[in-house]
Parts: sequence; structure tokens; C-alpha cells
Amino acid sequence: MPVKQFNGSANEVEMAFYDAISRGDLESLMALWAEDEEIVCIHPNSPRLIGHAAIRASWETIFENGSVHIHTTALHAVHNVLTAVHSLIELFHHANAPEQDLHIIATNVYIKTPRGWRISCHHASVAAGKAPKEASKSSVLH
Amino acid sequence: MPVKQFNGSANEVEMAFYDAISRGDLESLMALWAEDEEIVCIHPNSPRLIGHAAIRASWETIFENGSVHIHTTALHAVHNVLTAVHSLIELFHHANAPEQDLHIIATNVYIKTPRGWRISCHHASVAAGKAPKEASKSSVLH
Repeated sequence: MPVKQFNGSANEVEMAFYDAISRGDLESLMALWAEDEEIVCIHPNSPRLIGHAAIRASWETIFENGSVHIHTTALHAVHNVLTAVHSLIELFHHANAPEQDLHIIATNVYIKTPRGWRISCHHASVAAGKAPKEASKSSVLH
Repeated sequence: MPVKQFNGSANEVEMAFYDAISRGDLESLMALWAEDEEIVCIHPNSPRLIGHAAIRASWETIFENGSVHIHTTALHAVHNVLTAVHSLIELFHHANAPEQDLHIIATNVYIKTPRGWRISCHHASVAAGKAPKEASKSSVLH
């Protein structure tokens, strides 16, 4: 299915997002973002990027070093009919590395667009300490 | 006006948030958050905090060292009738310090609740490099 016609839920867009990253698939990745030029992407320790051109260029640079395997965990989601806000932990696969004393926290915001749910904001940052071992939770915004 | 009855816009809640931080006013600060127990707060380089008790305790610890003066800039806001997502730069006041080679990026999510707009998520993280000098922009989610 061409990703341009992707019409999944916010959860499915999130799965497609991390799947595209794991495959280094720039076209599929960028098609998951809202067309709004105010889309925001913040990579860990990096300046804020706004708009398709800057965000696309950043992922292109990341994929030049190969694809990135991210396992997500401890999702906390709050959502209403127009917006879903996901907070989760990103675990990176290091084949030969011991468990690290830092982890990545991501805030992903999805909005309902005429083309379906799309990414509006991805904010990833480094946190000290080991990743928490939590179950995922979801609730509806009051 | 008691902050419990605060009924401002998302922008006004954000101003009240940074104002409460600058005054070290824990009660006013906590009253600005949604009652939802899934509220999320991420301080720079720190683990994710979920729920009122953990978030309140973290600000209490911060305020024990005095209030914190944060100047915000370069706001990019996208909003619909139920949610406002703000991306901004937090500049800290260091009276005797030269311009630093790092800055703080914050993603603040506000939701419309029966009591008015309230904070659902505050994610602040450190970015390398000097803060960008950008004008603020706002757009409506499509």
C-alpha cells in the first residue's frame, strides 16, 4: 500500500514511523508527517528543526550511517478526536554493548488531517539513568 | 484571581506557567496542569515524570534552590479547538555568565478541560549550540 494513502490510527502511524526508521526508508518516513509547514522534529541533543525540508535533510543524514533499530516501550498516550500525544521510551539496539546508563524519551504528537492521522511533532531527548520498566497506558483527554 | 478559576487561553496558561516558575510559586504552578493523572513532565536530562505527585515533588525540589527566571522565545504554536502544541526555546538568566553554547527546547501541550486550558505535557531538553534567533509563529492545525 502506498504510504501516501496511509489511513491508520495514531498508534499505527507511530508503528509505521519506527518501522520506516528501522528500514532507513526516507520516503515512507516523510509521508507520515502532516503537510503543515510548522511540523517540528527535535533529535537528541540537537537544535529544533521546523518544516519538511529541514526534517527530511536530518533523517537523510541519519540514514547515511545505516538504518536505526528502535524498540519503543512504556507508552503513555492521551488523545481526543483531533490530537494524540504519546510519551514513550526509545530503546536502541546495541548488539555488543552492555545496558547503558541513559535512555531516550520521546514526545510524539499526532493530529487528524484530511489525509488521516499524521505526525505534527517528534521531540526526542536523552535522560540520565536506565530506562524505566513500565507498562503502557492510554487515556482519553477530558 | 485564584488560579483554580484560571480560565485563560493556552497562551495565557503558558505565561502563567513561566510566571509561577519565576516566583517559585508551587501552588499556582500545579493548578495550571490538567487533573488527568497521565500528565507528563520531563526536565532536562532527567527521567520522565507522570502524575501530579511526582511532578509536584520535582518542582518543589527545584524551588528549594530558589526561583528560576526563564525567558521564552521562538514560539511555534499549532492548535485546534481542543489542543495546543507549543514548541519554544527557554533562555535562562545568568547574571554573570557569558552566552552559553547550549540552550533548552521545550514542547508544551495544552488541552481544553472543563476548567479551561491546562497543561498536559511539558518536555524540556538540552540542545547543543546557541539558541536560534527566530520570530514566533502560530498556525491552526488542518
